[in-house]
Amino acid sequence: MSAISQPSARELFAPLNPPQRYLFGPGPTMVDPRVYQALSKPIVGHLDPYFIDMMQDVQELLKTAFGFKSGSTLVISGTGSAGMEASVANFVEPGAKFAVFANGYFSDRLTEMARRNGANVVRFEKAWGETFSDAEASDFIRREKPAVVGYVHAETSTGALQEGQAICAAAHDAGALVIADCVTSLGGLPVEFDRTAIDIAYSCTQKGLSCPPGLSPMALSPRAMDWLRARTTSPRSWYLDLKLIHDYSTVSHRYHHTAPISMFYALREALLVIAEEGIENRWERHRRFHRFFVREIEAMGLHMHVPASHRIPTLNTVLVPSGVDDGKVRKRLLEGPGIEIAGGFGPLAGKVFRIGVMGPLATEENLKFFLAEFKKALKAEGYSI
Amino acid sequence: MSAISQPSARELFAPLNPPQRYLFGPGPTMVDPRVYQALSKPIVGHLDPYFIDMMQDVQELLKTAFGFKSGSTLVISGTGSAGMEASVANFVEPGAKFAVFANGYFSDRLTEMARRNGANVVRFEKAWGETFSDAEASDFIRREKPAVVGYVHAETSTGALQEGQAICAAAHDAGALVIADCVTSLGGLPVEFDRTAIDIAYSCTQKGLSCPPGLSPMALSPRAMDWLRARTTSPRSWYLDLKLIHDYSTVSHRYHHTAPISMFYALREALLVIAEEGIENRWERHRRFHRFFVREIEAMGLHMHVPASHRIPTLNTVLVPSGVDDGKVRKRLLEGPGIEIAGGFGPLAGKVFRIGVMGPLATEENLKFFLAEFKKALKAEGYSI
Repeated sequence: MSAISQPSARELFAPLNPPQRYLFGPGPTMVDPRVYQALSKPIVGHLDPYFIDMMQDVQELLKTAFGFKSGSTLVISGTGSAGMEASVANFVEPGAKFAVFANGYFSDRLTEMARRNGANVVRFEKAWGETFSDAEASDFIRREKPAVVGYVHAETSTGALQEGQAICAAAHDAGALVIADCVTSLGGLPVEFDRTAIDIAYSCTQKGLSCPPGLSPMALSPRAMDWLRARTTSPRSWYLDLKLIHDYSTVSHRYHHTAPISMFYALREALLVIAEEGIENRWERHRRFHRFFVREIEAMGLHMHVPASHRIPTLNTVLVPSGVDDGKVRKRLLEGPGIEIAGGFGPLAGKVFRIGVMGPLATEENLKFFLAEFKKALKAEGYSI
Repeated sequence: MSAISQPSARELFAPLNPPQRYLFGPGPTMVDPRVYQALSKPIVGHLDPYFIDMMQDVQELLKTAFGFKSGSTLVISGTGSAGMEASVANFVEPGAKFAVFANGYFSDRLTEMARRNGANVVRFEKAWGETFSDAEASDFIRREKPAVVGYVHAETSTGALQEGQAICAAAHDAGALVIADCVTSLGGLPVEFDRTAIDIAYSCTQKGLSCPPGLSPMALSPRAMDWLRARTTSPRSWYLDLKLIHDYSTVSHRYHHTAPISMFYALREALLVIAEEGIENRWERHRRFHRFFVREIEAMGLHMHVPASHRIPTLNTVLVPSGVDDGKVRKRLLEGPGIEIAGGFGPLAGKVFRIGVMGPLATEENLKFFLAEFKKALKAEGYSI
């Protein structure tokens, strides 16, 4: 690295200067300036009393977001997928029967993780965007008698919301634990962990919580905690071993790994921003602007992919009108006004736009801005309104 | 969360205001202000062209730190332990023989992860702080004929540095791959990936790279990449599947998981700060202040745990003088001037202080400040100098 023989780092690498984006995709979404400030606070050690206290605050604040009184909350030092893998590695033992409600990409990922973990996976498959009725859910579980059941509360790949009460009731009748993927729901809409009677829920930071990605909050019911304590084998993953992580974060504070301090600062601040608004006010704001969004979208002659009864209020899947190339619309939005939205993938590739309206973006002003730009981009790509 | 019936979040949770710490422990260590600024830049999406380009910059900058020309660098979205688990999950197949040089806590962790992954682990054990000679290393590998060999380059729990050339040469003669734990060495001292002929190295961000914790940089030799491509079974971990992560980060940029955008910003900036100093200048600075530190420590009548020939220049293990309670000294330092150092654990509990001198702290002024406070705390706890 001598300065004479080689170009300097300053010549080779531009200063970090990310473009301003309006993150109207499924996540990551917009972050409150207070959260960015928290991210830049000086770090302390992962065993520092200040950090230990801060982790407790985070766990406490998460309870309101999950809709949760008893049991334990904790945070995995990885993204939402790490929370999914932690759920599978800790609660789906090799050889165990795992029943998955499969109606989108993330239930496929759950399936894949469980298979890699040696589980016997049985699936109830539906088309991407459909949901399971109470009777269907109960019948499947009664028939299969699984040890663990998995479903996706808010399926990011389709925009469909799956109610969990019938699933949880049937699972508990069968003596099974229930894992719920709440990656897209937490912070954006009610998870109702206790009322639904979920046992294990995992989420992420970069969607409904309006925080940058990097951590995975989890909630565990007393039943899940008992099951975990009684488990006699070690999960295949050490990094995601929830007994060890719970011991570090909540019980003895004995070193397990070096927690991502700055990300915890950000998560605490994001949860405080939410608590100050009032989480129910936030949910109601999301519902209100979801209705506004759908009205405006339908006024443009466009259609939603999911029936009104099962829509995720924060993540809208809008059908791509025929003759329009969704990739070109997205590129135009990104390169013009700097708006990010997502396309569909798997069976929905080219068929839907995935448009997130959550957190700081769920205001009338922001939505009007988005809708005007979206309309412009659609028109430019040949859609006549 | 109604404002009338419950205390508000502002009343229950104090604003985030972490204390100023001088992080003289083994990590996390001090962070350059530029890195904090980078952390607070607005995020973009994980598939945004800006982010994809930025990931390439990070991979390029990591090559210099690793001492690496060919092969691939990538970054795991988890801490150093996630990098360790990724190395094991991808390269140590269930049933494979894994030979571990065991002389400290992190080789024990490597052992535990490999056992959970179904490997047949054989260990060459030495006391914590000792190292393996070239002849010992070769004999062990020739005798065991393992499929994979693991060793810890800079053992954070003991302060001992293990040279890797003889290990790698013997392993390659036996047709084995070599995994090197470079968690404490990367950025602080030469890893010399190519010259040592390592196949798989993993590290963290919060030690030699002077960045907050949260990511695990990895380097893979062409031989390791070939082995990975030829592997016909899936690793048990999906989150840490290096084929999928390499595809997302380097090849197709197809979605795998949502990368922790802000942490990547921070890592890029930390690597730029290092590149601007010149990595060899940085290593030399660390060596110089290590010599200074040892001289001053010995002038205080204290002794180092590891022989001079095998010390990690950035992480010093100083023997706790008899009659002194190391916990009380550490508490005094933390609660007084806000200095964090670490104690020993396992067989070294109560026997050593672990004192990191790296990054922004490796200056004469900072060291003089530390040594004066350390002396004061030791005296207050009954040590007579």
